[in-house]
Amino acid sequence: MFSTPTLSFFQEIIELIGIFSFAASGLIAGLRKKLDLVGVSIVAGLTAFGGGTLRDILLDRRPFFWVEHSYWLWVIIALTIVSIWFIKNKHIAYTEKMIQLPDAMGLALATILGTQIALQFDTPLVVAILLGVISATFGGALRDIVCGEIPQLFYDNRPYAVIAFAGSGLYILLSTYLLDESMAAVVSFMFIFIIRAIALYKNWHLPTFRA
Amino acid sequence: MFSTPTLSFFQEIIELIGIFSFAASGLIAGLRKKLDLVGVSIVAGLTAFGGGTLRDILLDRRPFFWVEHSYWLWVIIALTIVSIWFIKNKHIAYTEKMIQLPDAMGLALATILGTQIALQFDTPLVVAILLGVISATFGGALRDIVCGEIPQLFYDNRPYAVIAFAGSGLYILLSTYLLDESMAAVVSFMFIFIIRAIALYKNWHLPTFRA
Amino acid sequence: MFSTPTLSFFQEIIELIGIFSFAASGLIAGLRKKLDLVGVSIVAGLTAFGGGTLRDILLDRRPFFWVEHSYWLWVIIALTIVSIWFIKNKHIAYTEKMIQLPDAMGLALATILGTQIALQFDTPLVVAILLGVISATFGGALRDIVCGEIPQLFYDNRPYAVIAFAGSGLYILLSTYLLDESMAAVVSFMFIFIIRAIALYKNWHLPTFRA
Repeated sequence: MFSTPTLSFFQEIIELIGIFSFAASGLIAGLRKKLDLVGVSIVAGLTAFGGGTLRDILLDRRPFFWVEHSYWLWVIIALTIVSIWFIKNKHIAYTEKMIQLPDAMGLALATILGTQIALQFDTPLVVAILLGVISATFGGALRDIVCGEIPQLFYDNRPYAVIAFAGSGLYILLSTYLLDESMAAVVSFMFIFIIRAIALYKNWHLPTFRA
Repeated sequence: MFSTPTLSFFQEIIELIGIFSFAASGLIAGLRKKLDLVGVSIVAGLTAFGGGTLRDILLDRRPFFWVEHSYWLWVIIALTIVSIWFIKNKHIAYTEKMIQLPDAMGLALATILGTQIALQFDTPLVVAILLGVISATFGGALRDIVCGEIPQLFYDNRPYAVIAFAGSGLYILLSTYLLDESMAAVVSFMFIFIIRAIALYKNWHLPTFRA
Repeated sequence: MFSTPTLSFFQEIIELIGIFSFAASGLIAGLRKKLDLVGVSIVAGLTAFGGGTLRDILLDRRPFFWVEHSYWLWVIIALTIVSIWFIKNKHIAYTEKMIQLPDAMGLALATILGTQIALQFDTPLVVAILLGVISATFGGALRDIVCGEIPQLFYDNRPYAVIAFAGSGLYILLSTYLLDESMAAVVSFMFIFIIRAIALYKNWHLPTFRA
């Protein structure tokens, strides 16, 4: 995503943080539903990699991230075994609080990367934005669907997909008219991360249908 | 779908009617579940384009309709914003009643188009029929699944998919033995639309498992 | 899967047994939920062919099994019509008991075949194992999701996917270091089938999250 080695190093760190926080939210959902080893692993993996995989299926793009970096599948299995044995109920609420900011990093990175990948496939701009948002949010949507819930994304009326949508649009705007791709990526990454952090802190709400 | 310009004009009108009625049924489902802006948009878009997208994934066909005609994504977002602000509960039942016949047009068009597209990929005939039915009905099935419900299609024992199945079979029969493709499409379109209208009016039922 | 005609004959028998038992578990789930003709057919077909289809979508492999052997779609429809008319509640529990061992055969065959197919696509080994497990188990997971349930696979803490995982790993180990492909397939097929049978008989359990 970034051209200089230093930034590329940062990207890998953020990627790690993002994958771990997405997987952790899947682990938590699975543990809450009293799933077994198999269920928790699948939900964790689906949350971490489901959004990017859906984007790639829609773009007809291979290999998937988890095929190219298949050691991650072992990491997810190991994480699940550890969490099944060592995590207690009190850890869950704590972990959920702890992953809010890392999750915002994952949201920002997955959105920008997803948008860049879609643009490489010459999709129309609104489709590139949509695929950026899908990359970042549909892992969580699949997590909720397989756990028998309506995706939180659909009803919690706090801005999450909307911020990704705006950040992806900002990236396209900046990279087309103002900045090179790397700088546009950094700025729109920061935009998504910071606005999401503010939205969490200020508890912003979106309009919902009433009556 | 049709070869002459006049019929092609009708097809575009019917396409518009079909997409709007499918999207409206997604909007209604989303509003009923008290989803927010994001949720209602996604459910509306999924209902309108999910069936055709699933057909195209199964056929490995690109670009999807909503990539080729990406302005539709803006239309769906605009529709959602309007519906979140202006629609009241009393409008919902009314809209549901109003879209029954337009929905039957969407069912008929999507079935015939889906069957024609599958035949271009040289699928076996029963697969072409199935993909016609999937094109027309799986948007609605996905709408219900993401809303946490069993698809209405699966249990309401009123003929919907079954009429699409018969109409798709009729198209294949007519276009193989009797008529050119355009005329076969018109006749089987009318067949699906009229039988569905009668089924609604007469309240026909399919066998369900009892005891 | 097997090279000699005799074994190939056995494979076809096992395939038949596997498909029928997977479809039967879909039929049962559909009947329990009081679905209609359309719903029961879809759930039966999804259970029988959903796992392999998902594997093929992930591998970008065509044609699907049910496109190449499309007469199976008629078999599923016929099975559904028969079951809607003739099956009574008392038959359901009996059928469920009866299909446990045939289902174990289906599990074993689908796992080994799925792993072999993935290896032909040069996936990393852990991905080949995962795709073997997906082939064998995700039909059942989709069955439960469309019926509005959390997949049984995720929480029933009896070893099913785990045995498929081990058997797939065993196949890779044997075929790489010890045996030719056919013998490795036979041995790991027997491994999955027998361990699954013992697990059913002894009522083995996996760790679940508690407290």
